[in-house]
Amino acid sequence: MGNIDIVDLGYNGYKIKQDKRYFCFGMDSVLLANFVSSNNANNVILDLCTGSGVIPVIISYKKKYKKIYGIELQKEMFELFKENVNLNKLNDKIECINEDIKNIKNIRKKLIDNENKDVFDIICVNPPYKKGGTGIKNDDTVKYIARHEVMCTLEDVFFTSKSLLKSNGKMYMVHKPDRLVDIIYFARKYKLEPKKIQFVYPKVDKKPSIVLLEFVKNGRGQLDVLEPLIEYNEDGSYTDSIYKIYGMENKDVKKEC
Amino acid sequence: MGNIDIVDLGYNGYKIKQDKRYFCFGMDSVLLANFVSSNNANNVILDLCTGSGVIPVIISYKKKYKKIYGIELQKEMFELFKENVNLNKLNDKIECINEDIKNIKNIRKKLIDNENKDVFDIICVNPPYKKGGTGIKNDDTVKYIARHEVMCTLEDVFFTSKSLLKSNGKMYMVHKPDRLVDIIYFARKYKLEPKKIQFVYPKVDKKPSIVLLEFVKNGRGQLDVLEPLIEYNEDGSYTDSIYKIYGMENKDVKKEC
Repeated sequence: MGNIDIVDLGYNGYKIKQDKRYFCFGMDSVLLANFVSSNNANNVILDLCTGSGVIPVIISYKKKYKKIYGIELQKEMFELFKENVNLNKLNDKIECINEDIKNIKNIRKKLIDNENKDVFDIICVNPPYKKGGTGIKNDDTVKYIARHEVMCTLEDVFFTSKSLLKSNGKMYMVHKPDRLVDIIYFARKYKLEPKKIQFVYPKVDKKPSIVLLEFVKNGRGQLDVLEPLIEYNEDGSYTDSIYKIYGMENKDVKKEC
Repeated sequence: MGNIDIVDLGYNGYKIKQDKRYFCFGMDSVLLANFVSSNNANNVILDLCTGSGVIPVIISYKKKYKKIYGIELQKEMFELFKENVNLNKLNDKIECINEDIKNIKNIRKKLIDNENKDVFDIICVNPPYKKGGTGIKNDDTVKYIARHEVMCTLEDVFFTSKSLLKSNGKMYMVHKPDRLVDIIYFARKYKLEPKKIQFVYPKVDKKPSIVLLEFVKNGRGQLDVLEPLIEYNEDGSYTDSIYKIYGMENKDVKKEC
């Protein structure tokens, strides 16, 4: 019981229930949900590797859209995702899919009534950050899969996004800056042109800990590297930029559990 | 006569003579010269698109090396380059080559006695930033070529660097952030793996104006995105980071003329 944690997101009373044994959302998910640009009430959004559903829930508060589909492979995380959709009464806005993101055929069947066309206006993803290769640790499997590229590589994410996005549809990703070269390489390979990049620096004199990216399927034209997003002031308090993203009442969002 | 400008670099009395009609060095060149990591007295360095030679001159003050070769195509800029090497009495350290960087065969002949091997430990380049395609304006040819990819494209720079660097040799580039995707794409294509990237932001809340990159030929391993380099404080004065790069007595370095 000590592993269950319910976090108030500070947005309209929205909450996220999570299990410390598996994976807890962090600032990266909050920043990604904020970074997604969706101002059209007809947008259909797909969130890959959705975990306990924090990104769909925050987008529900912050953005205009018609429906969000969240895909989560791991049963334990998927159950939490469903609970969180119920907890926040978002059943008519968020649909939970228990599927492998590599199984595009199944995703099409489940989501678009077997029509063989690309339907999503927006895809967002907070993928596993760490390269796999060391195998699955038996004592910690759910968390390990959530954090490492065991079941889902960076290339899988780009392939699936390319396959399921409309032309000119947008993809949003949060990742670690040390993977930037791989990210840009795969983006070009799958014709998801990087259009916006923002680096998130813990402090003004530190290396970035997070990078946010927007891609456009079959996009052309120039990349826009945005102003730096600094997380903390010198004294350790959040910067105004972070408060603005979080909402002022939301000072207790945890970076990790 | 009013077009000639002699700038004291603030490093050991080194000066740069330039002609406002052609091209004047800016902060980007100073930052690139500082970014080059050369601590070995045996290093042989090649500076592509060297212009009036500001990068070799600053490296001569700041870094250890054996010899720097600077290549400049345009006769007017090349003459200034030679003058600047004389002016700073660096004739035994810097060699001026009037050549097209695409003419690798000629460069080899001129620099490495016709031996068909890659000899440079380090290549640095501040290339033309703007895409060509609009043709050469007759009234402003020298400056136009220096600023636009008319005689030298981004891909030419990577091809030449790959051809002339030793394996594990390092390449350093300064460019505009909006070309980052192209830069990384060509870097991977020519096996010059990006290892360090630093964004230079005019102010802490502005988009970056400059990006500095280090590549390693046949390199592997992770990218290191460095702390942000902020140019100006809120009040418009240079930050301590910039003063440290410039040297404290060098408060008059001009960004452009």
